Amino acid sequence: MSVDEIRRFFEPRSVAVVGASRNPVKFGSVVVYNLKNMGFPGTFSIVNSEAGTEEIRGVRCYPSIKSMDKPPELAVLAVPARSVTAVIRECADVGVKNVVIISSGFSEAGESGQKMLDEMLTIVRKVGIRIVGPNTTGILSPGARFTTTFVPLPSNLKRGSVAFISQTGMFAGVMLSHILTAERFGVSRVAGLGNKCDVDDSDILEFLYDDPDTRAVMIYMEGASSGRRFLETARWFSQKKPIVLLKGGRTPEGAKAAFSHTGSLAGRYEVMEDIFRREGIILAGDMDEMIDYAKILAYQGLPRGMRLGVVSMSGGAAVMASDVTSEIGLQLAKVTREELRGIQELLPEWARVNHPLDIEPLMERVGGNEAYKISMETILKCTGVDMALLIVGLGIFDEERESKIVDVLIPVVKSAAKPLAVALLGPRSHCDHVAALLEEMKIPTYMSITRAVKSLTALAAYARVRGKH
Amino acid sequence: MSVDEIRRFFEPRSVAVVGASRNPVKFGSVVVYNLKNMGFPGTFSIVNSEAGTEEIRGVRCYPSIKSMDKPPELAVLAVPARSVTAVIRECADVGVKNVVIISSGFSEAGESGQKMLDEMLTIVRKVGIRIVGPNTTGILSPGARFTTTFVPLPSNLKRGSVAFISQTGMFAGVMLSHILTAERFGVSRVAGLGNKCDVDDSDILEFLYDDPDTRAVMIYMEGASSGRRFLETARWFSQKKPIVLLKGGRTPEGAKAAFSHTGSLAGRYEVMEDIFRREGIILAGDMDEMIDYAKILAYQGLPRGMRLGVVSMSGGAAVMASDVTSEIGLQLAKVTREELRGIQELLPEWARVNHPLDIEPLMERVGGNEAYKISMETILKCTGVDMALLIVGLGIFDEERESKIVDVLIPVVKSAAKPLAVALLGPRSHCDHVAALLEEMKIPTYMSITRAVKSLTALAAYARVRGKH
Repeated sequence: MSVDEIRRFFEPRSVAVVGASRNPVKFGSVVVYNLKNMGFPGTFSIVNSEAGTEEIRGVRCYPSIKSMDKPPELAVLAVPARSVTAVIRECADVGVKNVVIISSGFSEAGESGQKMLDEMLTIVRKVGIRIVGPNTTGILSPGARFTTTFVPLPSNLKRGSVAFISQTGMFAGVMLSHILTAERFGVSRVAGLGNKCDVDDSDILEFLYDDPDTRAVMIYMEGASSGRRFLETARWFSQKKPIVLLKGGRTPEGAKAAFSHTGSLAGRYEVMEDIFRREGIILAGDMDEMIDYAKILAYQGLPRGMRLGVVSMSGGAAVMASDVTSEIGLQLAKVTREELRGIQELLPEWARVNHPLDIEPLMERVGGNEAYKISMETILKCTGVDMALLIVGLGIFDEERESKIVDVLIPVVKSAAKPLAVALLGPRSHCDHVAALLEEMKIPTYMSITRAVKSLTALAAYARVRGKH
Repeated sequence: MSVDEIRRFFEPRSVAVVGASRNPVKFGSVVVYNLKNMGFPGTFSIVNSEAGTEEIRGVRCYPSIKSMDKPPELAVLAVPARSVTAVIRECADVGVKNVVIISSGFSEAGESGQKMLDEMLTIVRKVGIRIVGPNTTGILSPGARFTTTFVPLPSNLKRGSVAFISQTGMFAGVMLSHILTAERFGVSRVAGLGNKCDVDDSDILEFLYDDPDTRAVMIYMEGASSGRRFLETARWFSQKKPIVLLKGGRTPEGAKAAFSHTGSLAGRYEVMEDIFRREGIILAGDMDEMIDYAKILAYQGLPRGMRLGVVSMSGGAAVMASDVTSEIGLQLAKVTREELRGIQELLPEWARVNHPLDIEPLMERVGGNEAYKISMETILKCTGVDMALLIVGLGIFDEERESKIVDVLIPVVKSAAKPLAVALLGPRSHCDHVAALLEEMKIPTYMSITRAVKSLTALAAYARVRGKH
């Protein structure tokens, strides 16, 4: 039943945006713009005390929630904090079930804010309204063509299999913009929870557990309403789908900033770190890591161990990959000369094959794409290899021919059934092009060897959580 | 005198590419293509035993070095390893002074390769020829419109103030492509040194010391011919310009790969790390860090301490910046309420100003750009702030207006005379656009808070080397 309450935040049939005005820069107005832009199939209205009953941007207006013909399932509040309680009271009166509060100025604003919050919570608890926020961008649910976010969204919104739960409003917004434009994996559900006066990470996880759209979850969390419930939920959830957590307030300085931001009390991270790991949570150190890890977890299957096979287009890149692999604590796979004999036989006399496989000499003999193919086939077959890193250098030969690496790789990777990541080095636009082609086939790409190796490490760590090794 | 010998690698008046053929995929042919494309103002010719004396792609051909009317100052060798010694002998006979050997198959190829190398070195030492390589892409010198690289270069090659010394051929190539396309700072000189049979990092540093084009140097090094000379040179050099070093072969696994790659013997990194730091070298953990650090060192002046002021468009981003700052060992500046009073007076009643400065509430009052301006003015004036991080979120408001942040920032930053870095979050193309505008004014930008903070840390570390704090 709680899951159905949460589902309504992501798939409401009707919504009212309270506080949307003619000013297109105001947050409420952007919400309306986004809903129209996404083609939200439900009904939606604007509630604005100054607007009367005319239309704003072709959307029906009401002076108040109470004056609406039929109460909406969900209300989005973009009014000043001091007006929130009054609106909530109306919601309670007419039977609105779900509310997203965008407005700031509650628990992060000290005593008076906390008082307003308490007053509001007394009302909603009586009637069972569920609240997301305050101080947030709220919801994005591409599958339902629904959002409450005040960040202008692109119209070609990509639907993907990664969910994102974030504590912070503005940040969730710009981060979302980043993911939707710089990454290709797309999101399934986004929940900006803000100050978490009611709905928290655990509630969302309970909903995502059976959400067929979601394969992996990213969480940015400053504090949890109930740490214990979060850990229990995370343990249960991680046995089905991975959670990548970026904790804000890891240091005393960060914790202080978190308190003045969302009123969160962050605990000692050194202690929490171990506990998080024990419950199966994958930890990220920053935004890039969180995105990188979620991507590989959404795209790839799980390895049966920690042993990494490396194929590199350059000796220098092979050195760097070896260093990073060891430094991070992944194992560089042991590969025998016998297993590499097929490649040795193709090489110029002076070159001796080794693992990591530096395929530059092989390229001189059989060409770039054939060299990638032979090497990946060979390395993925090795019994000591659980997963692979392929380092591709672009911009050396003809661009069109270099892009064909995708056609070469797909069948090799499919038949091998071992996970892999690709590091792409070279001219940026060409790397972007090849990345898009590879990720279309769910092969994760990274523009950095370090980031690729770290992501494979996260994949192996989650495989251990799931008992694969 | 040695410096003049090295200068000839970067600014030769005449060059012969030995081994260039009609096949455009062959490395030698790309070198010729690049020289034409860059508009190399000196004379250049092709030497190819099979080509006779006709022209290839409009460039004069000779069957051998000996048959040339006038010996070139520099010869680029792209012939098989086994033919190199014979060509070097010809070079010695006619008086070629500088040779770049692209070919692989020497010390990294075991005994027979080492024998060829020794034979060659005996010849060159007798006549004083200087050699870059073998196993390398060699030289790029945008100011002299000269290169020996076999990686196709873009025609709008940006000239900048960062030099790059790299041990590895192919890798230097793809990395260079990356820098030239994904970064905006441009290079002054690139030296791919390969196996370093003669010219090594120290020789190049001696030349770069007085090179007016170069403000900062990046080095990717697997091993040094003489570790002691390198350390002495680096100490001397670092008192004038910064060196950012990425060491390959830091781990036993990496060292093994380095040995099979360039025949380098890498020492124990834990020991070397301390020594490098003591000599004033800034250490990078991977390619991205090396590029990030070089950029800020080339663009910004040096701070008088380690105390960082942070201005952020989002509370969540402020939390993340605080965490990363503490974790990395930089100091979050202590800022008094009195110093922030001007901002407090502008805020909505519920908001209380703190450091890191979360300017979201201020934006609601005075608009985005004005909020950035006031906050940066305030934070840069604080006596406890040595340098600043500004976190900008894009994609919330109108794109054109958001881009104006550049006009707002420039005067503030100029009058403050304290270094800063900008982290840009939001839609990728918009971030790229603003990054280009800011970096045009030498304000370094990063698409990650972590990378920005790490770069500021590198800047502060180098300031200490130079006795600024």
